[in-house]
Amino acid sequence: MLPFDILEYQRRIHLTKIKMEEKGIDVLLISDPANMNYLTGYDAWSFYVHQMVAIIIDEPQPIWLGRYQDASGAKAKTWIYDENVIAYPDYYVHSETHHPMDFIGEILTQIGQGRRSIGLEMDHYYFTAKAFDRLKKALPNATFKDGDLLVNNVRLIKSDQEIDYMKKAAMIADQAMFHGVESIRAGVRECDTAAKIYYHMVSGTDEFGGDYPSIVPLLPSGKNTGIPHLTWTDRKFDEGDSVIVELAGCYKRYHVPLARTVSIGAPSPNLERLAPIVVEGVNEVLEAAKPGLTCGELEEVWRKSIGRYGIEKEARLGYSVGLGYPPDWGEHTASIRKGDATVLQPNMTFHLIPALWFENYGIEISETLRITDQGCETFTKYPRELTVKHPFIIHQHGGEIS
Amino acid sequence: MLPFDILEYQRRIHLTKIKMEEKGIDVLLISDPANMNYLTGYDAWSFYVHQMVAIIIDEPQPIWLGRYQDASGAKAKTWIYDENVIAYPDYYVHSETHHPMDFIGEILTQIGQGRRSIGLEMDHYYFTAKAFDRLKKALPNATFKDGDLLVNNVRLIKSDQEIDYMKKAAMIADQAMFHGVESIRAGVRECDTAAKIYYHMVSGTDEFGGDYPSIVPLLPSGKNTGIPHLTWTDRKFDEGDSVIVELAGCYKRYHVPLARTVSIGAPSPNLERLAPIVVEGVNEVLEAAKPGLTCGELEEVWRKSIGRYGIEKEARLGYSVGLGYPPDWGEHTASIRKGDATVLQPNMTFHLIPALWFENYGIEISETLRITDQGCETFTKYPRELTVKHPFIIHQHGGEIS
Repeated sequence: MLPFDILEYQRRIHLTKIKMEEKGIDVLLISDPANMNYLTGYDAWSFYVHQMVAIIIDEPQPIWLGRYQDASGAKAKTWIYDENVIAYPDYYVHSETHHPMDFIGEILTQIGQGRRSIGLEMDHYYFTAKAFDRLKKALPNATFKDGDLLVNNVRLIKSDQEIDYMKKAAMIADQAMFHGVESIRAGVRECDTAAKIYYHMVSGTDEFGGDYPSIVPLLPSGKNTGIPHLTWTDRKFDEGDSVIVELAGCYKRYHVPLARTVSIGAPSPNLERLAPIVVEGVNEVLEAAKPGLTCGELEEVWRKSIGRYGIEKEARLGYSVGLGYPPDWGEHTASIRKGDATVLQPNMTFHLIPALWFENYGIEISETLRITDQGCETFTKYPRELTVKHPFIIHQHGGEIS
Repeated sequence: MLPFDILEYQRRIHLTKIKMEEKGIDVLLISDPANMNYLTGYDAWSFYVHQMVAIIIDEPQPIWLGRYQDASGAKAKTWIYDENVIAYPDYYVHSETHHPMDFIGEILTQIGQGRRSIGLEMDHYYFTAKAFDRLKKALPNATFKDGDLLVNNVRLIKSDQEIDYMKKAAMIADQAMFHGVESIRAGVRECDTAAKIYYHMVSGTDEFGGDYPSIVPLLPSGKNTGIPHLTWTDRKFDEGDSVIVELAGCYKRYHVPLARTVSIGAPSPNLERLAPIVVEGVNEVLEAAKPGLTCGELEEVWRKSIGRYGIEKEARLGYSVGLGYPPDWGEHTASIRKGDATVLQPNMTFHLIPALWFENYGIEISETLRITDQGCETFTKYPRELTVKHPFIIHQHGGEIS
């Protein structure tokens, strides 16, 4: 029932402990649901309450710490022994008087970990400022270290099984993009296209179902295409509009993002000019990507390519991608941007998102790639171009074909 | 284009400032995207990077502080003056060397707020332990106070316009539940039912589109119905299975949650016994709810009701609900549970979720309610009962009707 062999989980724990030792961390407290899942298999929508996985340097088994009603999920969905699943009562949830970190501190003290060096995911969404304050009070004899991104850095290089899951996610991404783009035409509402995309992201294929992506499909249209992170509305598409579709296929929490720009009818001169520049830049980056290069060097290829046309991009070109939970499918480790010294290695995976945004328009034509032994390969098959939806052709019997 | 009149935003700011004064807070830094939206109208999936809205006690306008590529959205989607939208460059994003709180601290210093009393949403997901550390370093002369849930407490009582949005969300919830339940039968996969639900949640009605809910549809089936927060898989429903469907309709970020339990074929003796007990308890709570009662007193009605049948529920009975962003649609203020002293007032809204979970099964039949002048009313119309899907009747021509 676990998505990976027990040996793979143990290898991950082993690599995590090596990094813990390097940093002098005895006990790593993990708040990131992706890292909890990576090390234990735990997968549930319970991260809206405080919960943690503790990795103790000299103990073979992780400990799951969370809400009472979620403990059954931790027992059912992980390789952790049942006695290592420790739950707090419901009166700790969203309470003015009780905080889950009081409980977690008390448990760590009881099991003899209260005086150790404790690593914390200091900048993760689900480890709040108050959580840290309360944990410090509950563990007055512990020392605290920043363990942020420690596990994320283990996740940077994927196993073959993880790559296989991403290939399935890519099939879902291609299919969701196909059906989403198919639905786009003048008079259709943004929400109807988003609904089609969601349907296909979630139902997946006949062979395997889809999972929810960590970010909803982003779908700005018209002049909102200059604003990257707007979600859909019930605005109707107009003839001549462009629409940016950014989505991810997701399989067992592994993501393959994919963005395309769609023109309803003839593209604007701006898009017509930009699309080949972006595609050329992407092609050059894909040509250049290979083990040994740094992320910064890869970004330089892109910067030079678009620079030939007098274009600059403020935002980073891409980021490491894979396992994720809301609100982000990015892994927060390597970015493809100036100065990033991460050396590319086989089975690293990136979302290359060479998006350009201007006052009233924008363009996104992205690829998710895997570094191979000699170069790189992309996950999805969707055509790498500006997608033009030609006006309806009215069928002679009155039916519409598009 | 804003979902509320400018006067409503100003009333919200006014009520927020009253609470700031009570707590001695000069500058409130808001990380909760729901609170950012509530006070400014800002609505975008940008909360995966650090961003804030600052409310300064003696300034009429909020300040939006966020990522450069999101500033255009803040200008387009809020009533804030463009010069109050202040953005940090992209090299602050997920960086080892730069942190957005360094930038925000610097800006606050530059505008003369560096020595004031600063309120922080200490336990909100999007205000991390590191964010607080860096902000303290960037503002060495400020004093810090816990402003957690300050704005959430303003949100507790809804305006009529907010209630109207929740009524629209309820129509979406009813429709998504109808189509989801309709799709449930032996041989169908959980993911296919989740896909149907998503389609109808997002496309909404012909008159208005739907928004994404803060929590994905939860859809455990078979023995997983004893585990509340599992998301769908590609498991096929079996004859005799029960399925719990928990979803929310969402309109302009306002949620109306709705949970039902579905039996495929004749219900198990356990469900048959529990369903009328739960419905009776819900009916008694709805009968009792009215202004003046406390949340704790309301929970007692439920506890006594199910106590007559020898049943206890560990988890809280309900929570305040409305505007929300992932990972939660709950407002984290009032809970319907023992000891909660919140006094019910007209236009408070709660999700009443009398869920019971056991070793291998569970039941959820929920209602979202609004406190009225004299009592309460529910938002959705879906029948309040265990939903039984009778086996297929094979049509004489071979077609299936269910």
